[in-house]
Amino acid sequence: MIMSRIEAPRPAGTAGSGTLVDRLRAGLPTEAVLTDPDVAASYANDMASFCPAGTPAVVVLPRTVEQVQHVMRTATGLRVPVVPQGARTGLSGGANASDGCIVLSLTRMRRILEIDPVDRIAVVEPGVVNADLSRAVHEHGLYYPPDPSSWETCTIGGNIGTASGGLCCVKYGVTAEYVLGLDVVLADGRLLSTGRRTAKGVAGYDLTRLFVGSEGSLGIVVRAVLALRPKPPEQLVLAAEFRSAAEACDAVCRIMAGGHVPSLLELMDRTTVKAVNDLAHMGLPETTEALLLAAFDTPDPAADLAAVGALCEAAGATQVVPADDAAESELLLQARRLSLTALEAVKGTTMIDDVCVPRSRLGDLLEGVERIADVHGLTIGVCAHAGDGNTHPTVCFDAQDPDESRRARESFDEIMALGLELGGTITGEHGVGVLKKEWLAREIGPVGVDLQRQIKQVFDPLGLLNPGKLF
Amino acid sequence: MIMSRIEAPRPAGTAGSGTLVDRLRAGLPTEAVLTDPDVAASYANDMASFCPAGTPAVVVLPRTVEQVQHVMRTATGLRVPVVPQGARTGLSGGANASDGCIVLSLTRMRRILEIDPVDRIAVVEPGVVNADLSRAVHEHGLYYPPDPSSWETCTIGGNIGTASGGLCCVKYGVTAEYVLGLDVVLADGRLLSTGRRTAKGVAGYDLTRLFVGSEGSLGIVVRAVLALRPKPPEQLVLAAEFRSAAEACDAVCRIMAGGHVPSLLELMDRTTVKAVNDLAHMGLPETTEALLLAAFDTPDPAADLAAVGALCEAAGATQVVPADDAAESELLLQARRLSLTALEAVKGTTMIDDVCVPRSRLGDLLEGVERIADVHGLTIGVCAHAGDGNTHPTVCFDAQDPDESRRARESFDEIMALGLELGGTITGEHGVGVLKKEWLAREIGPVGVDLQRQIKQVFDPLGLLNPGKLF
Repeated sequence: MIMSRIEAPRPAGTAGSGTLVDRLRAGLPTEAVLTDPDVAASYANDMASFCPAGTPAVVVLPRTVEQVQHVMRTATGLRVPVVPQGARTGLSGGANASDGCIVLSLTRMRRILEIDPVDRIAVVEPGVVNADLSRAVHEHGLYYPPDPSSWETCTIGGNIGTASGGLCCVKYGVTAEYVLGLDVVLADGRLLSTGRRTAKGVAGYDLTRLFVGSEGSLGIVVRAVLALRPKPPEQLVLAAEFRSAAEACDAVCRIMAGGHVPSLLELMDRTTVKAVNDLAHMGLPETTEALLLAAFDTPDPAADLAAVGALCEAAGATQVVPADDAAESELLLQARRLSLTALEAVKGTTMIDDVCVPRSRLGDLLEGVERIADVHGLTIGVCAHAGDGNTHPTVCFDAQDPDESRRARESFDEIMALGLELGGTITGEHGVGVLKKEWLAREIGPVGVDLQRQIKQVFDPLGLLNPGKLF
Repeated sequence: MIMSRIEAPRPAGTAGSGTLVDRLRAGLPTEAVLTDPDVAASYANDMASFCPAGTPAVVVLPRTVEQVQHVMRTATGLRVPVVPQGARTGLSGGANASDGCIVLSLTRMRRILEIDPVDRIAVVEPGVVNADLSRAVHEHGLYYPPDPSSWETCTIGGNIGTASGGLCCVKYGVTAEYVLGLDVVLADGRLLSTGRRTAKGVAGYDLTRLFVGSEGSLGIVVRAVLALRPKPPEQLVLAAEFRSAAEACDAVCRIMAGGHVPSLLELMDRTTVKAVNDLAHMGLPETTEALLLAAFDTPDPAADLAAVGALCEAAGATQVVPADDAAESELLLQARRLSLTALEAVKGTTMIDDVCVPRSRLGDLLEGVERIADVHGLTIGVCAHAGDGNTHPTVCFDAQDPDESRRARESFDEIMALGLELGGTITGEHGVGVLKKEWLAREIGPVGVDLQRQIKQVFDPLGLLNPGKLF
């Protein structure tokens, strides 16, 4: 990752920021208002490369809904932009500060308020860490599926803001499918409750889903009712090696057309496998062009893996290795989870794309990415949630080399163009943020942009919430 | 059902309707524009009781997207309201005509455009009948779960408009979870594409979900990309008899807390069981106070039914009878599907409520409904998608008896009030329409109403789309 450009912090207390800070302090405890310029600067950006970030005027860390309302009323009164933040693990600059903004960090609102095994719901504050919730519900025999790679640090509020995915989605879907209801503080400080805590409900427009994936641009989520599932059996993983990415993609199509429902179906290309071995000496097979990982958490996972293994062989797999037990399965998943970190180590910096295509077009996308890498003389490793058609082509480059940086950016854009051409989307799970805002319009078209802007206007008429993102 | 009040049709061609019809005919084939007053009147209402309906000026039945655009441009040009309709099987008056409106029936746009087993999607026009789609995808080894009771006649467009549920929802969720993308003709005739045909996608606000359940008030859905699942094994059903509704509800809680995932978990109270026997002589056990039906479509349904049967016995079931095979299972489901028709036969007319509560409060709701029936001296049968906490308390009354009709309406409202008190919603799957519009505001509150009205304004600034519904 490269650090985003951050302008030199201005001394606190100038140009009205005294007023702002004083007003914020009137409704917040002392320790909840951070004005030290170095501290504020440390909240400037998330984990995306190439995204500009400004310098916050102040960082606030409320603990209650009332405190969030106070922040929003103050911001509206003084017309100061507000950038909501979770753990800042995002990959699109969606949480990057703008100059003079209030950074509103929700990380201290981290209580799990309720877990109910009969209604199969959890009620949480936005700052709860994904893994903390997952572990807490496990103790009740329950399961909260969404599992972004950053699950050990990312927050539920951030997951809701970006409608995060993860490895489980091929069977269990994305964050959006687990959000039943929300409490949201609006730009003007009013509190809105959306949705429900029941299994079903169709009273009025679905505002809950409008907030999910809205990247903090419509309101501040302060409470969420989440759907849970019963904990499934431990999953068992299989690894299959292929002589080409095309064969691996063919296997994916055969598996899905065959009616299988794997709990995970991931692909790592040769570049990614090598990068993981270089970083962690995991002994993955470097002779393979593509490694496919499939898992089942069914009552008889070994039988399902055998059926899927046969389909892999029919598609040309040179080797199919089912894990013997949970420990071996976990090792394979660790390799997959290390992919992005490993690719980052290749040349120091990465740009991580997030193109999702219909899974029948996955082979075309990977072939295209290879071509793009060749044309630009770049290393682009691909790991993919193959069962979803969701790929993360990751451009590895030296940020100190201006020419390579330029080519990296160009190839990144070409991959999105290819994704759209193949009937896909520019972002399967990472969001638009700053990184892809020029691309959003290409995907949703002028009528879509017009309506989305008007909806933004309904919720945030002064344009104070996370300005400069999405559009 | 009672027929809704329909005002005497006015002669066509008066007061500008000539202009309207002429303009419509300029872009539609002759047979697609119906002006005969008797014919037009036959399109006045859906299947809800107690909902006012007006007289349409004209009924149009377009076959193409361009024809729908022509209708909307004409309507906007002349400021004529448009009421979109599917099969008019709705139960809330959401498709009822208003005086002088254009009824826009989508029933002739009924092509299944695509079924793809690799991408697991279907692309359909809005007039496709639910059962036709279900059968067509079955032939490809696929499954489209949403199954409203009216599935043999209701259309996918109508299902999308009301975000319909059905019997399968306890395992498979509602219509909303199967709509990936939409083509929508807006009030002014512009064509909007929302969503995607990929498994994942987070580019911009989720407009797709905003349209689902919007009851035709935001735009005209002319094409939908639907998610499919692999066809599961045939389900096996179990019937359990209880001495009280409370015990049956306790069994539901035990089943869900036990981590089971039935493909169906339905409850019929004594009144409903008796009504079904009276109508169809099915030999259901009339000594029971509550009959619970549970089903599994897992690899080993008999084992799952045995576990659930034991939980029913622990909750006090007097008898637990698992079906031996698919045919016996189907008979039990037929009894359940007959419930509403059977209750209608009791006194000639019914009001069907649709309150959904957290399933842990199901027992409280049923107890309350019994109390309300007693107080008003009414017969109220309850069938329920118990696993979802979604109940259909059905008030049986004689519409010729004004006093009984008044008490019916009062009890109907009291049931909704009780549902809200128990943390539930006024509508789990039938929608707001005309029937519950006064109740919507009670559920979503003034901030919610304010925002919903503003969203309506964005999509339909002239207020021409399905006026008088929802708000």
